[in-house]
Amino acid sequence: MKKTLIALAVLGSVAGVAQAQSAVTIYGKLDLGVTKLSGDASDAAKATKLQGNHSSRLGFKGTEDLGGGLSALFQFENRFNADTGTQAGDALFSGPAYVGLAGGFGSVKLGRNWSTVDSVSSAAIDPFEGDGIGGLNALTRARINNSVTYYTPEFSGFGAQAQYILGEQPAGAVAAGTDNDGYAVAATYNNGPIYLGLGYGREENSNDSDVWGVSGSYAFGPAKIALGYDQRENEEVPNTEKTKNLVVAGTYEIGAGLVKAAYNQTRDGADNTAITGFSGTFDKIQKVSIGYQHNLSKRTSLYADIARTKVTNPGVSDTANGVGVGVTHNF
Amino acid sequence: MKKTLIALAVLGSVAGVAQAQSAVTIYGKLDLGVTKLSGDASDAAKATKLQGNHSSRLGFKGTEDLGGGLSALFQFENRFNADTGTQAGDALFSGPAYVGLAGGFGSVKLGRNWSTVDSVSSAAIDPFEGDGIGGLNALTRARINNSVTYYTPEFSGFGAQAQYILGEQPAGAVAAGTDNDGYAVAATYNNGPIYLGLGYGREENSNDSDVWGVSGSYAFGPAKIALGYDQRENEEVPNTEKTKNLVVAGTYEIGAGLVKAAYNQTRDGADNTAITGFSGTFDKIQKVSIGYQHNLSKRTSLYADIARTKVTNPGVSDTANGVGVGVTHNF
Amino acid sequence: MKKTLIALAVLGSVAGVAQAQSAVTIYGKLDLGVTKLSGDASDAAKATKLQGNHSSRLGFKGTEDLGGGLSALFQFENRFNADTGTQAGDALFSGPAYVGLAGGFGSVKLGRNWSTVDSVSSAAIDPFEGDGIGGLNALTRARINNSVTYYTPEFSGFGAQAQYILGEQPAGAVAAGTDNDGYAVAATYNNGPIYLGLGYGREENSNDSDVWGVSGSYAFGPAKIALGYDQRENEEVPNTEKTKNLVVAGTYEIGAGLVKAAYNQTRDGADNTAITGFSGTFDKIQKVSIGYQHNLSKRTSLYADIARTKVTNPGVSDTANGVGVGVTHNF
Repeated sequence: MKKTLIALAVLGSVAGVAQAQSAVTIYGKLDLGVTKLSGDASDAAKATKLQGNHSSRLGFKGTEDLGGGLSALFQFENRFNADTGTQAGDALFSGPAYVGLAGGFGSVKLGRNWSTVDSVSSAAIDPFEGDGIGGLNALTRARINNSVTYYTPEFSGFGAQAQYILGEQPAGAVAAGTDNDGYAVAATYNNGPIYLGLGYGREENSNDSDVWGVSGSYAFGPAKIALGYDQRENEEVPNTEKTKNLVVAGTYEIGAGLVKAAYNQTRDGADNTAITGFSGTFDKIQKVSIGYQHNLSKRTSLYADIARTKVTNPGVSDTANGVGVGVTHNF
Repeated sequence: MKKTLIALAVLGSVAGVAQAQSAVTIYGKLDLGVTKLSGDASDAAKATKLQGNHSSRLGFKGTEDLGGGLSALFQFENRFNADTGTQAGDALFSGPAYVGLAGGFGSVKLGRNWSTVDSVSSAAIDPFEGDGIGGLNALTRARINNSVTYYTPEFSGFGAQAQYILGEQPAGAVAAGTDNDGYAVAATYNNGPIYLGLGYGREENSNDSDVWGVSGSYAFGPAKIALGYDQRENEEVPNTEKTKNLVVAGTYEIGAGLVKAAYNQTRDGADNTAITGFSGTFDKIQKVSIGYQHNLSKRTSLYADIARTKVTNPGVSDTANGVGVGVTHNF
Repeated sequence: MKKTLIALAVLGSVAGVAQAQSAVTIYGKLDLGVTKLSGDASDAAKATKLQGNHSSRLGFKGTEDLGGGLSALFQFENRFNADTGTQAGDALFSGPAYVGLAGGFGSVKLGRNWSTVDSVSSAAIDPFEGDGIGGLNALTRARINNSVTYYTPEFSGFGAQAQYILGEQPAGAVAAGTDNDGYAVAATYNNGPIYLGLGYGREENSNDSDVWGVSGSYAFGPAKIALGYDQRENEEVPNTEKTKNLVVAGTYEIGAGLVKAAYNQTRDGADNTAITGFSGTFDKIQKVSIGYQHNLSKRTSLYADIARTKVTNPGVSDTANGVGVGVTHNF
């Protein structure tokens, strides 16, 4: 949905547009609204807040035709909180940040890149894109540092990718909070109304995790239904050895509007949705989200989301309700 | 004075300027000079320094016509110190950072925005804009996080605004350093040579402050005279229950030059002017500032400012003199 | 090698390119590759890493014609690590950040600027530009905060510059880690195949250092040979009173390729090359670097570098070998 903006490169004379030789695309998003939680969330979480469904962002990207079918490409993207002007995430460019080459062989990207598993697991079909009041739980990290990712060309809708993650740790060093080498592979099928994705990843950290993800969607007319499932198996931490996450979602276009609904269930995992704020690991987390997005243009929309989250442990059952209304502007 | 720069959006072909569909405005300011304090300021404050009258900045803003008289708008602005390249302020975008909508009803902005009271109090008519050697004292914060601000359309020069500030604290939480909900209202009159502003704000923090501000200016030929007054009343801190701030200022255009002069008096308050650096609360603070700005173009100017600050408490009377010369470039 | 990109300023109508009135140049670099050290480096240093030969960057710069031969100029540049998206260096804009004026008299720049000595010492002729696996040792800081630098016009290839550095410390304050006032002067000769540079700088910090630098190069056809030497003398620290650094380098163009080779020897100094990572001060540091850069275009290149570093102290002699391959893209 990001409308790209090409800043013209004109060397010598600003009137000589035909001399344009270089390009960088500047893009971004501003997203802010008012959110309110109620129920069993903490008092701090229940304060009325100004925050966006997504973090706001400012990005720079470009491609260069190198001839012979080869091209260079790059992208890097800052995330920020427009309510306070502060940096979002743990890096100046906590969105993607990579450089790469593309050609007949496909493409290769080096740097901080989208996670291969995340891109085909339940996160891929979350109509709330993981964020905001309605955002669903996921077991995968959205972006991966120090990664080398290869993408095949698409053949008849089929595509695949392989990602190698440099842990940058000495051999044998395995400590919590640091990540050693890992890898991931995924395959996708995109053809008309059908989307399917399947991926597996291995993270050689203190948990030595295997992560599986699968997702699919089918569109018929204004409606789309989607299903996603991910599973994380930790070899080294017996008490939470296997976490499972399921998403069932649907969207329906009504004129300039889009209705979204989703059910999400996590077994033996933590609630990673930023806004609800239940902390710890639970036997079962269930979330129902309903949202409406009204497009004022291709770049600007208003939204209203409601969600109910229930976390269950032996002898404990807490619920929180959330509501958020806001505006998103892409540039 | 910010000359806007529109980076053209050209989708498909860089030669097809007529296809432009999207725009972001990139703007900024570089400001650096040499400053020197003397008198009773601390030894550290008296070191000769390279610093600007204002922090340098890089901003991004844009509007989108949504049809039917409605438009979307956004702005976010980084502040930095060009002498060291470091971030200025406590956020990546410590200037404004907001998204909003505008139409026949006026406009609404969500985010980190200019303070409604600040925009009509003594700060509004400080010819030194609050910064640098000549900058005057003020009782209001320049920008407000987590704010929702509504601006009426202007009718015959009359305008008004109302600002609601989300404290994002649980009900009943009142702690120093954190801000709870607050609000502010202001009215302005702008017509030919006359400007008038009046505002009131309530901050529900540990001090529970009421802030009043009023300002006015009158221009005749190359001259402009201005008067501003603000008052802050703290309910919860008896010893500094009321702070008063007065500004009398004048400017005079001479060809490409602008002469500035101001007198500022604060009663029972702290010296918030960054460069003088007297700390603590004083019975009386008096400052006289004189400056000359020479415009090399609409975007670039040289400046020279001198100022004398005197702080008075029972048995104490300290003065500091300051001088600064520098260059400002807007892009 | 930085291709500039001029974002057109069009006020009023995006179709009216001839109305362009303002310009900011947005430029940058993405650089990432895989590096590997072996030998006597620490286990942590020997982990395979994704990192660039240079830090990636995003810069903004511009000039404004003020008439009468005078112009305003500015530049500020962020450095970041594209492997993680994190800020590189100790400031948001840790590259240059300055504003200045240029005219018949030459030019003056205020702010964080390139070091005058660095620009003419061994660093000036390092074909690896100080960074990456092949980067050579240097005794000078690349960029200087709080500096005022004057550049003469060039006459028949001769040019000179003088730099004053404000320490911003009270008189008499001399502490390790803080820098007091300093200054530097340099002269250069650039004419056809010949380049010569000579500079001297004085840093009034806890070491009270005198820094000398000299460099030269001669090009004949596709080949260029270069020689550089710098010396740092510390008055206040007897044990490391004099450090000497020598660089001998050569490059050879083969079609779209560039072969680089260099030998570097430091006496009584520390290894400041970021990647090798030997810490402490050594009697002798020797480095041999060989690299090949293949230009896919004027903006994009692939590179492969190997280097061997040997550090020697009485009774100690350690060596590390490094290899790195990667891609650089300028925009």
